[in-house]
Amino acid sequence: MTDELNAVMDLGSNSVRLVIYQQGPHGTQQELDNLKQTVRLSSHLDSHNMLSEKGIQRTVRIISQFKQLCDAYGVTRIVGVATQAVRMAVNRDTLLQRITEHTGIEFRVVSGQEEAHYGYLAVVNSIPFEQGVTIDIGGGSTEITYFQDRKLVYSTSIPYGAVSLTREAIHSDPPTAKDLKALEKAILSQLEQHSWLKDLNCPVIGMGGTARSVGRIHQRQRDYPLNILHGYAMRPAEVTAILDMVRSLPVEKRSETNGLSGDRADIIIAGMTILDQVLKHVDGTEFVISNKGLRDGVLMEQVLQTLNQTELPDMLMYSIQNIHDHFRLNDNHAFHVWKLAEQLLFDLMEYRVITDNYEASRCLQVAALLHDIGRTISIYNARNHNFYLLLQVPLLGITHRERVLAAAIAAFKTTKQITAVLADYQEFLTEEDVLLISQLGTVLGLARMLDRTESKVVKDIHLVPKTKGFVLRVKADKPLHLELELASDWLKKWRKTFQSDIRLEVEQID
Amino acid sequence: MTDELNAVMDLGSNSVRLVIYQQGPHGTQQELDNLKQTVRLSSHLDSHNMLSEKGIQRTVRIISQFKQLCDAYGVTRIVGVATQAVRMAVNRDTLLQRITEHTGIEFRVVSGQEEAHYGYLAVVNSIPFEQGVTIDIGGGSTEITYFQDRKLVYSTSIPYGAVSLTREAIHSDPPTAKDLKALEKAILSQLEQHSWLKDLNCPVIGMGGTARSVGRIHQRQRDYPLNILHGYAMRPAEVTAILDMVRSLPVEKRSETNGLSGDRADIIIAGMTILDQVLKHVDGTEFVISNKGLRDGVLMEQVLQTLNQTELPDMLMYSIQNIHDHFRLNDNHAFHVWKLAEQLLFDLMEYRVITDNYEASRCLQVAALLHDIGRTISIYNARNHNFYLLLQVPLLGITHRERVLAAAIAAFKTTKQITAVLADYQEFLTEEDVLLISQLGTVLGLARMLDRTESKVVKDIHLVPKTKGFVLRVKADKPLHLELELASDWLKKWRKTFQSDIRLEVEQID
Repeated sequence: MTDELNAVMDLGSNSVRLVIYQQGPHGTQQELDNLKQTVRLSSHLDSHNMLSEKGIQRTVRIISQFKQLCDAYGVTRIVGVATQAVRMAVNRDTLLQRITEHTGIEFRVVSGQEEAHYGYLAVVNSIPFEQGVTIDIGGGSTEITYFQDRKLVYSTSIPYGAVSLTREAIHSDPPTAKDLKALEKAILSQLEQHSWLKDLNCPVIGMGGTARSVGRIHQRQRDYPLNILHGYAMRPAEVTAILDMVRSLPVEKRSETNGLSGDRADIIIAGMTILDQVLKHVDGTEFVISNKGLRDGVLMEQVLQTLNQTELPDMLMYSIQNIHDHFRLNDNHAFHVWKLAEQLLFDLMEYRVITDNYEASRCLQVAALLHDIGRTISIYNARNHNFYLLLQVPLLGITHRERVLAAAIAAFKTTKQITAVLADYQEFLTEEDVLLISQLGTVLGLARMLDRTESKVVKDIHLVPKTKGFVLRVKADKPLHLELELASDWLKKWRKTFQSDIRLEVEQID
Repeated sequence: MTDELNAVMDLGSNSVRLVIYQQGPHGTQQELDNLKQTVRLSSHLDSHNMLSEKGIQRTVRIISQFKQLCDAYGVTRIVGVATQAVRMAVNRDTLLQRITEHTGIEFRVVSGQEEAHYGYLAVVNSIPFEQGVTIDIGGGSTEITYFQDRKLVYSTSIPYGAVSLTREAIHSDPPTAKDLKALEKAILSQLEQHSWLKDLNCPVIGMGGTARSVGRIHQRQRDYPLNILHGYAMRPAEVTAILDMVRSLPVEKRSETNGLSGDRADIIIAGMTILDQVLKHVDGTEFVISNKGLRDGVLMEQVLQTLNQTELPDMLMYSIQNIHDHFRLNDNHAFHVWKLAEQLLFDLMEYRVITDNYEASRCLQVAALLHDIGRTISIYNARNHNFYLLLQVPLLGITHRERVLAAAIAAFKTTKQITAVLADYQEFLTEEDVLLISQLGTVLGLARMLDRTESKVVKDIHLVPKTKGFVLRVKADKPLHLELELASDWLKKWRKTFQSDIRLEVEQID
């Protein structure tokens, strides 16, 4: 742990968050710790927007505790940002001074526009959409942006959040039809002030606790096999259905909803109504959850400065590099195996054995670059560990389906074995996928064996068609004994999987 | 990877093995790589025990390949040992010279007694029996020892192994009743030469490919939920039943047996008959599989020299230290959390809330010392990762049941959650276990929160009984804000799990 540690504290209207990051050698950042305390700062504002002494004390205490953890870790740089509740507080200087006195941390109050921009930054660098609406539903405000070609086009911050709107508009439990009508009207009147929002007809990407709760509730309802929220997609009608369900229940019943945490049950109706109204107003094509938000946007700004970029040129490769750093994988070997496997795939596509297919090549890329990750757990059952880990590590820019495919490719031993491994993941697969996984798994297995000594002895490979299959031409600059011995098992698997012959020929080069 | 790398090569009568180990900072050794090639050296001996040129060439080639991998890793020390086939070969000097010429490695031919001793060393330092018989069934010989109080009492090497005995005694496929009778008789006549072996009535611990195959076949037959062979226990009658099954099949059918690898199908009957005969002759109480064998014994000899011991004083702690080194866990924090958790457990036992129970305290120990291992995968779902990893990492000296209990304790969030996690592991559990796991999981969760800043602020804790439950007296030498805030959630869980009250009192000490 000699790398530098950074922390971001986010003083929101509903909760205070601390995230501690370890900086990797490639501008990457690994989350080391993550803590949340619910403060409900916006509830501590009186009708004159005066923050109560109790609210100030509680905030200062929690930030002191977070500072204590930062000190214990040896964090060298803490960035503190504060949002709507602090923006609104007439006595915010008192709060900020008290925080600085007790902890030395100087919080920056970000404007609604800045907050929206951070949300946009977090999303376009972690979710692979060219165009979309981002919505970050906080406790005291909601930030909305629209981006095209990954560039920010419009943004706004509306002064309604899950906490403040609950206080203002919900007067019964469960809310009456009248409450709900007023709630929707209040939100709509805000949305209508931004004509660019109307009928954008694009994906809507949601951040914040409300969005995550909706996703979690939906995943539990349908027994979703992955434990990943980031990138989870729902149809807008499914969001409406969950809203209808929660708003019909009194808070005690509501808090028993599988996937909803107890300390959010009171404010979820207001939060979800904002989301639902935005989806309808925008005419959203789908709702996608982002686990990344304000904090990650703040951090991404720093990363992009380090990399001297305005956006990540390749978020998938960035996340893979991050995983390489964290698990201390052998970069050189991984990239070499990828190169060999990709060459085989390109040849197979050229000769129409595998249909030309961008998804297949991306999945093979992920599998190849991370094929050794299971060995960090143990060299025994390493391929099973590949499957487990590839469903867990923070990959960015790929769909859940692609993740399952990549995990299966990296876990492949035999068609029978991988069929059993995939039993719980049928919903991601089409009928042809098991064959494709077996083919790509065989390609990867063979490529791996050709660099089994991790010394890049094989310089180049090509498939050359012959009557009943292929000759695999291998150029090597050193003798290849172990590689060939071990590759022969994979050539057998190749013959079985591809139902065609393959023979290996080595050309020694200087 | 700056730590020193060692390798052991084992030139056996059936296969050649390479294991590469990374030396950790505490005399520990982590397996980095493990390769096997089947050579069948004993089949290359003619009737005058002359090793054929073809056999020599194949052996030299494979050892050169292994050497290539060692060089690629940067292994600094290679120990080579050769066993029965080389012991028997009249031209063994030619073989050894040729190996040295091509690779620089000087193989040591170990005697049958030495080989038996290494097997004993591997077993008594990885399986927690005070008394037992070890049996290592190789290709050309079988080593048997008897130990008491973990000390070697008797040992022998008999010149029959799975390969040589197949060649000598099995003349049909499947073998005839006459073949089988002769096979059994040959083995028995050897066993009868060692009067100490008869009716020892103790556990028999098996090493080598035959033993592992038996275990794997049995695990597949009953759909065993763990993917671990080391320490797997069977009844002797179950071994006999598997032998009866395989010996009734011709080799092609036999090789389809789930759990049996194709390149062992021809020799498994001879190997298993040796095992079965020993179990019967010894009157074995149970058959236990050891994944550790000759190679590990050779390595253990080095480890014990480094530690200046004759046997590992605590194999469980040794393996935990090994895991700490490999996963770079924070030792200080882990040991402190264990100390706090153990104190709570002792108090609960003293006040008869938990029954006094050595197993419970060992499981809590493992869970506490490894409670942060899941965070090495990701801080999200870290407790699920604890469960996965604790079922995979190389723990020594605990039963499979204890491993499942420890994994569940380290994964505990709520009774409902852990019940779901344990659904596939019912065979290891009694009815009371879920309550015990919830109690120990709560104890661990609370202890962890009391060192959440990993700075050992809490010096001492004790439970003091009061009318409706306990006061938890905490002595701390610094303010405890974050710890107390986070502990409060676990106090709530405590009240639920233990169905009794608990209140926390802090005493500041200097």
